Amino acid sequence: MFSFIVMKLNLTTGIIPSLNVAAGLLGFFFVKISTKLLDTLGLSSQPFTRQENTVIQTCVVAASGIAYSGGFGSYLFAMSELIVHQSEPSSSDYKNPKLGWMIGFLFVVSFLGLFSLVPLRKMMIIDFKLTYPSGTATAHLINSFHTPQGAKLAKKQVRELGKFFSLSFMWSFFQWFFTAGNDCGFQKFPTFGLQALQHKFYFDFSATYIGVGMICPHIVNISLLIGGILSWGIMWPLIQTRKGHWYSADLDPSDIQALKGYQVFIAIALILGDGLYNFGKVLSQTIAGMTAMIIQRRNPQLPTGAKNPLSSDDERRTAVFLKDQIPTSLAVGGYVAIAAVSTATLPHIFPHLRWYHAAVIYVSAPALAFCNAFGAGLTDWSLASAYGKLAIFTVGAWAGASQSHGGALAGLAACGVMMNIVSTASDLMQDFKTGYMTLASPRSMFASQAAGTAMGCVVAPCVFWVFYAAFPLGDPGGEYPAPFAVIYYEMAKLGVGGFSELPRNCLSLCYGFFAAAVAINLVRDGVGGRGARFVPLPMAMAVPFYLGSYFAVDMCVGSLILYVWQRRDRAAADALAPAVASGLICGDGLWALPNSILALAGVEPPICMKFLSKADNKRVDAFL
Amino acid sequence: MFSFIVMKLNLTTGIIPSLNVAAGLLGFFFVKISTKLLDTLGLSSQPFTRQENTVIQTCVVAASGIAYSGGFGSYLFAMSELIVHQSEPSSSDYKNPKLGWMIGFLFVVSFLGLFSLVPLRKMMIIDFKLTYPSGTATAHLINSFHTPQGAKLAKKQVRELGKFFSLSFMWSFFQWFFTAGNDCGFQKFPTFGLQALQHKFYFDFSATYIGVGMICPHIVNISLLIGGILSWGIMWPLIQTRKGHWYSADLDPSDIQALKGYQVFIAIALILGDGLYNFGKVLSQTIAGMTAMIIQRRNPQLPTGAKNPLSSDDERRTAVFLKDQIPTSLAVGGYVAIAAVSTATLPHIFPHLRWYHAAVIYVSAPALAFCNAFGAGLTDWSLASAYGKLAIFTVGAWAGASQSHGGALAGLAACGVMMNIVSTASDLMQDFKTGYMTLASPRSMFASQAAGTAMGCVVAPCVFWVFYAAFPLGDPGGEYPAPFAVIYYEMAKLGVGGFSELPRNCLSLCYGFFAAAVAINLVRDGVGGRGARFVPLPMAMAVPFYLGSYFAVDMCVGSLILYVWQRRDRAAADALAPAVASGLICGDGLWALPNSILALAGVEPPICMKFLSKADNKRVDAFL
Repeated sequence: MFSFIVMKLNLTTGIIPSLNVAAGLLGFFFVKISTKLLDTLGLSSQPFTRQENTVIQTCVVAASGIAYSGGFGSYLFAMSELIVHQSEPSSSDYKNPKLGWMIGFLFVVSFLGLFSLVPLRKMMIIDFKLTYPSGTATAHLINSFHTPQGAKLAKKQVRELGKFFSLSFMWSFFQWFFTAGNDCGFQKFPTFGLQALQHKFYFDFSATYIGVGMICPHIVNISLLIGGILSWGIMWPLIQTRKGHWYSADLDPSDIQALKGYQVFIAIALILGDGLYNFGKVLSQTIAGMTAMIIQRRNPQLPTGAKNPLSSDDERRTAVFLKDQIPTSLAVGGYVAIAAVSTATLPHIFPHLRWYHAAVIYVSAPALAFCNAFGAGLTDWSLASAYGKLAIFTVGAWAGASQSHGGALAGLAACGVMMNIVSTASDLMQDFKTGYMTLASPRSMFASQAAGTAMGCVVAPCVFWVFYAAFPLGDPGGEYPAPFAVIYYEMAKLGVGGFSELPRNCLSLCYGFFAAAVAINLVRDGVGGRGARFVPLPMAMAVPFYLGSYFAVDMCVGSLILYVWQRRDRAAADALAPAVASGLICGDGLWALPNSILALAGVEPPICMKFLSKADNKRVDAFL
Repeated sequence: MFSFIVMKLNLTTGIIPSLNVAAGLLGFFFVKISTKLLDTLGLSSQPFTRQENTVIQTCVVAASGIAYSGGFGSYLFAMSELIVHQSEPSSSDYKNPKLGWMIGFLFVVSFLGLFSLVPLRKMMIIDFKLTYPSGTATAHLINSFHTPQGAKLAKKQVRELGKFFSLSFMWSFFQWFFTAGNDCGFQKFPTFGLQALQHKFYFDFSATYIGVGMICPHIVNISLLIGGILSWGIMWPLIQTRKGHWYSADLDPSDIQALKGYQVFIAIALILGDGLYNFGKVLSQTIAGMTAMIIQRRNPQLPTGAKNPLSSDDERRTAVFLKDQIPTSLAVGGYVAIAAVSTATLPHIFPHLRWYHAAVIYVSAPALAFCNAFGAGLTDWSLASAYGKLAIFTVGAWAGASQSHGGALAGLAACGVMMNIVSTASDLMQDFKTGYMTLASPRSMFASQAAGTAMGCVVAPCVFWVFYAAFPLGDPGGEYPAPFAVIYYEMAKLGVGGFSELPRNCLSLCYGFFAAAVAINLVRDGVGGRGARFVPLPMAMAVPFYLGSYFAVDMCVGSLILYVWQRRDRAAADALAPAVASGLICGDGLWALPNSILALAGVEPPICMKFLSKADNKRVDAFL
């Protein structure tokens, strides 16, 4: 069912909300009902535990995640004759979707993400204490279902969660009525004026991101806002004044050779700068830690160093999390084995993608997967598609240099490999966080994720096949335009020309921002202690570069609410804020389900809440 | 300043918000600043008391009230050549505005309202305990400024008031940005869909009416909603299906001979039924009370009967309120004397209005003034214009029967007399309520109101004269269209034809609803005790008949908030709800001032938040 919903959204708007929460909730309700049913039928049934709930949710999310990272609305479909011929009518370099190679392709690339980050899970979840807001919210929700009776605070938390869950759900439902057509509804509310809206700076009344803002640390939200102001408030307008000089004035701003190019690539530069710095740091710490461990083993009488005291909850969670080990040798071995098979197989599926392209991807993927999982842990945004674009440009340019044609297809295939790896890696880490908080065994989480991935590799192509067979996909004016498929193909075409196709000064700016990201991290580590809390995070700053600041505004509102609440009643805020935030996220999240069903049934909202300037309004009034 | 603002609104949209609160606040700030200034200059100055504050506010409201009830945007301007010739180009029956007769007219009619209800003030304020939400809110505000230091609850109340005051003010400010053009902004939010909006059934996010709903008893809010559903939900749609049978299908629904006729006259029938029933009841109770008092005086040893225990606050308020008596003989004498002068003068100003028309108005006016003041006490709505319309139709028809021409002018003049009386009467009673709650002497309140009225009688015509001299008023496409002037003239023209001009069955429906209003009151008095709390109030039910249910929805939301709050924490709700409600009302009220200044300065809001149906939206998107 979730695969079906995601696929439909892929092929219509291309924008997919997070379905974690809906999966967690529905998993609970279905199993609860069935166990109740078995119970009343007299068939003995064991109680339904939160660990089981977590494992079910993980499996469902993994399966439906493939419907997104499989690229059926983007890179995979972009290779088809239909899309290629929209851009280049004479080209014979295309690859039409077929059930067989799609399933094979997904099987050889989707498991790599799982193995790539497994050894780092303790570091990310326990040592770094990354928040993973969606994962945390899902965990709070699942915990609230399985609370032992009588615990007063837990009951209160559940009540708050339930209250804000229903409020958030009803608010999303209410918003839906006003979203007939584009640019309608609260999602396009020009809270700070129409000018600001055009610069993607507005408050969009999203309960999800208010909740996410309440879960994320204040500095993350502030960093997002700083990034948004820096990019959409200062840099993009300045770059736009250079229109005609830095890039051709004939191009649309959303063209990758115009403003969009700066947005995408500067964001990628910042993310890479921050991610690689942290990767290097983590690597050196890991090596240092391992060295220390070896020394410790040899001299067991040495003290293990002071540790921050943990709450009893966290102590128990850490114990459970560390009990069921997944051997590092299995992870490394699995990764190398699958990568080897994949390297051998991929050139057979995509003749333009050579084995050495695949090998380079598999060598660099773990670092990028780490960057993405780290960023998602901080900000809740998985930037899988950004990494995919990076692969399009680098591999596309490389392949394009040696083969005049087909570089674009090689780029798209590389994008698919990269997206699958980084996306499943960050999903896995989100689920590990959920498992950590619900005391689920990491080993069963990993098994569940693997099972879900396997299911997704079969189910998603089949669901796509149904759409492909039944509807005229990719028709720009039709019901299923699949807008991202064309965009991806255009990007891949550009990529073949290499970085020289980028607008002027873009590459220099990228170098500058890469350096700035490293510098900011050096400053944070240099300042240390309390001062470090006030240094913004480049990773968080980069996200609004590409997307705009609207969600940063939402998240800062969440931060502000939390701050005021903490000032007024610290104890209550600390106890209840996660529950309130989870309620907000989950209610909005669950609405994605009826919303998708309404869209599938072809039910359109009845009203458009439109925002017109004074002058436009006069013209429209005269027209109506 | 306030006269200027009201006049501008008169001549542009014709919709005037309540300025009570703004007057109270500004009175406080200006005097506080000047006393502070005198203090720092070393000139001895006495402390500024809340009674003085109340008296200042009363005077300002009375003066600016004349700018509204003087009809410069409605009946008075409707008599001018400009307006008359828009409707009947050949007519020679018109009366152009001149400073002299306008001031004279206002002086002979505006004081009657003051004298007409003065004797009933104890009954309405103390015995009936009518709420007068605006007056109560203003009193809370003024009290909060003059709270003795150290009282913890008072401080808490002031804090809540201040918080909700700023929230409400900022919310109104925020709303303003989205109101470029008609049908824009939150005031036209189709909360329950576009169909419901067309039937004036929506939640308009008005902080004022949410606050009013929190102050009014639940049954008032429920009655309003019942009235709204009965009229706009059931009756008007049914009547509209009889279009072409009951009234000409060619007419606009807003034509008084079409649907609008049913709305106005059925509402008036209900109000009259309820008002006259209560007037009769009060009169009989008054006579009974006076008889009992006479018996009591003759036999002082008789017990005075059980009384409900009063809170110490209310005891003190009642004591102050009853201490400074205004002799009934003065009130009655004043009324009779002014009525006599007025009856002699009016035919000289308006030749078509005979002395016997005036005399009849003055005989019936106190009853109608009571009805209006009673209704305003329950619902905060002064229906002065509805009573004015009644006078247009009755006197217009009467005068039209004997003089072929000029009946319309007589009707308009009668409207002016009636509106001035009922409007000042309800204003006075609102202010008495404020005075009661701020421990101000009723005698000084009366004097202040009289002084304010006298000021208004001079200032308002002068301000109008400035506009009249400077701008082309009444031009439908111009900056000052004065829309209600034309509407009033059209109504007066119709009125000359008498009730026979009304749409079919309208009069029978009016009789029915008049009888229903009396019957409902009989049921309430018959049931008595706790049961009476659940019988709806016809007076409250009538208001949405004419205006639609949007404010009833707001008020029910207020009621619901109060109900939930009371269920959760009775003590806090009882202590703080009036402060919160006052804050909501006052913040929105104060916004009327900058809003008017912005309108005067010609600053239009930049954005229109428009609500389009799915089909309209597609057309507009194609058009833009």
